[in-house]
Amino acid sequence: MRVEPWREIAKFGRKMVEQGLVGSHFGNISVREGEHIHITRTGSMLDEITEEEVVVVPLQGESPVDSLASTELRVHRRVYAITEHRAVVHGHTPYAVILSFKYDSVKPVDAEGGYFLGEIPVVEGESGSEELAANVASALKDHRAVIVRGHGTFAAGRDLKEAFVALSATEHSCRVLYGLLCLRT
Amino acid sequence: MRVEPWREIAKFGRKMVEQGLVGSHFGNISVREGEHIHITRTGSMLDEITEEEVVVVPLQGESPVDSLASTELRVHRRVYAITEHRAVVHGHTPYAVILSFKYDSVKPVDAEGGYFLGEIPVVEGESGSEELAANVASALKDHRAVIVRGHGTFAAGRDLKEAFVALSATEHSCRVLYGLLCLRT
Amino acid sequence: MRVEPWREIAKFGRKMVEQGLVGSHFGNISVREGEHIHITRTGSMLDEITEEEVVVVPLQGESPVDSLASTELRVHRRVYAITEHRAVVHGHTPYAVILSFKYDSVKPVDAEGGYFLGEIPVVEGESGSEELAANVASALKDHRAVIVRGHGTFAAGRDLKEAFVALSATEHSCRVLYGLLCLRT
Amino acid sequence: MRVEPWREIAKFGRKMVEQGLVGSHFGNISVREGEHIHITRTGSMLDEITEEEVVVVPLQGESPVDSLASTELRVHRRVYAITEHRAVVHGHTPYAVILSFKYDSVKPVDAEGGYFLGEIPVVEGESGSEELAANVASALKDHRAVIVRGHGTFAAGRDLKEAFVALSATEHSCRVLYGLLCLRT
Repeated sequence: MRVEPWREIAKFGRKMVEQGLVGSHFGNISVREGEHIHITRTGSMLDEITEEEVVVVPLQGESPVDSLASTELRVHRRVYAITEHRAVVHGHTPYAVILSFKYDSVKPVDAEGGYFLGEIPVVEGESGSEELAANVASALKDHRAVIVRGHGTFAAGRDLKEAFVALSATEHSCRVLYGLLCLRT
Repeated sequence: MRVEPWREIAKFGRKMVEQGLVGSHFGNISVREGEHIHITRTGSMLDEITEEEVVVVPLQGESPVDSLASTELRVHRRVYAITEHRAVVHGHTPYAVILSFKYDSVKPVDAEGGYFLGEIPVVEGESGSEELAANVASALKDHRAVIVRGHGTFAAGRDLKEAFVALSATEHSCRVLYGLLCLRT
Repeated sequence: MRVEPWREIAKFGRKMVEQGLVGSHFGNISVREGEHIHITRTGSMLDEITEEEVVVVPLQGESPVDSLASTELRVHRRVYAITEHRAVVHGHTPYAVILSFKYDSVKPVDAEGGYFLGEIPVVEGESGSEELAANVASALKDHRAVIVRGHGTFAAGRDLKEAFVALSATEHSCRVLYGLLCLRT
Repeated sequence: MRVEPWREIAKFGRKMVEQGLVGSHFGNISVREGEHIHITRTGSMLDEITEEEVVVVPLQGESPVDSLASTELRVHRRVYAITEHRAVVHGHTPYAVILSFKYDSVKPVDAEGGYFLGEIPVVEGESGSEELAANVASALKDHRAVIVRGHGTFAAGRDLKEAFVALSATEHSCRVLYGLLCLRT
């Protein structure tokens, strides 16, 4: 049975906030369905997404409602254009942001991260910029997650569950690595 | 449709506690409506605000129910008197408090903080004092948030959602910066 | 209107767990009512207290149901015997435990802690021992909260709300102080 | 009255996530009932276990539904084979993982950990491997909890409540010890 995309988005948005990955306003979520993208609005609170808080835009080209969508719409669109992913989550996850100032890629030391994520690239780019869209989408061709320096994590998968796992695993790996770095200094 | 101010206050009070920004008793919230202020009572638990837990006082002058309102009423009143803000939230957010002992202003290094908040001033003043009211209100003329040294954050905006985002963004920026400082030492 | 003691205990037990002060099993709570104490059972989960999970024992002397009560019953009884407090909460709050290895008393540096708690004594004593009961009760004569070295915090007040605030404020003060100590080293 | 095993699993799975011990996907849970094991499916989200998310497999030998069960089924089976435990929980608890890189066993310094857990062994082994099953089961003969290096904690008991307490106590002890190590460096 098809679950409406906004319900899936609402479910995982709530999980992101409740599990301490992000604050209400610090992320966005999309799902691809055929030639359309269902994406959270700009300014949405991820822990209380309703049907009205999700905008449907075409996969390619622009649309009249683009301006209602998350300011990171360009990134989401590009990911779907050049990868096989069907869902993308983004959040300002604190440990990933901290480590992004120190590394050009994060190499998880925990078992789950090493096995499931492999190396996590760190890229650059201004919010909403062409450069950011290109860098994130390119990194997600070969990775489940990518960290934008000083900004947050984008994670992707075949569905929202898989994208959420990648986001959550990335933050866990960064937290463990950060914990070790504090010990070692 | 007008949402009753106490409902908005209850909603964001719960978010503040649930998202780990403050403990139940360590903050207060107000909304301006015309020439009145709706403000949480002294001793209110932010995660269970009811209509009875919100007091309505005049914007200017004093009122018989002033003594029921948060002990920070003076700060809230002053903010509305000299700025355009329509909502104020205050909380004893831990990372902001920690950094306030080290800095005279916090310069976010994360993208969101830099773009949305700019520099966050750190001011001084005893709880409930004239000095605190003057310093906080003055800082909020040009900033979305201000940290009171050793005490907590005041954040403001056109509505409670905007004030809450500013509070949450301030704590996120302080957390990231703190994380980096621990790495560097 | 009288609220049944077990309902108050359930409410604040849930808050302790939900606000990250303790895990389900790492604390106990009591309220004095006249010549009796309502106290959580040994092994109770603080986030799901029901009427059956609260035992009523006499303030003085022993009772047949003593063995069902929290193993810290002796501490609670002694606090009521020699102080004016009407409610006691105890939890294995992590930052208080960490600092207890470093200090013989914690001096809060944050405004709330300094004003509301003053100095927080650190005492010693084995769980369930006479020594622990004597040390904690003695400290709570002049303080709202006391930390047992390597173990956790006992906080007290005129009612559970006040005791909970003292527990929460103690952990906040310890967290801020710990954060500063990590920065300074 | 018998509580259906999947309900107990659902309850403690939710607690593990809500109390910040693990993210939704980073753990698994089982209960032994007679000659069968009730265990979470591979890929289950611990905070929303339903009856369908729990698989029943034989204690000994293999079964057609083995492949639906958690990839750690082999570990759970071995624990029940060589110990008296009736319930096992596993989670990628961050502080245990961090300390596992530093120690060959964790010696709790907090009172609860010292008394209830004693020394917590750290073992090695790839996820799903024979080596992991042997090491974890062997360690749980004499201990309530064991940490797998770089991976997470397995904890066990007479029922899920006891196993959950051991998992929670292990992470608390690791967190306190980690906090002290950061102070000392």
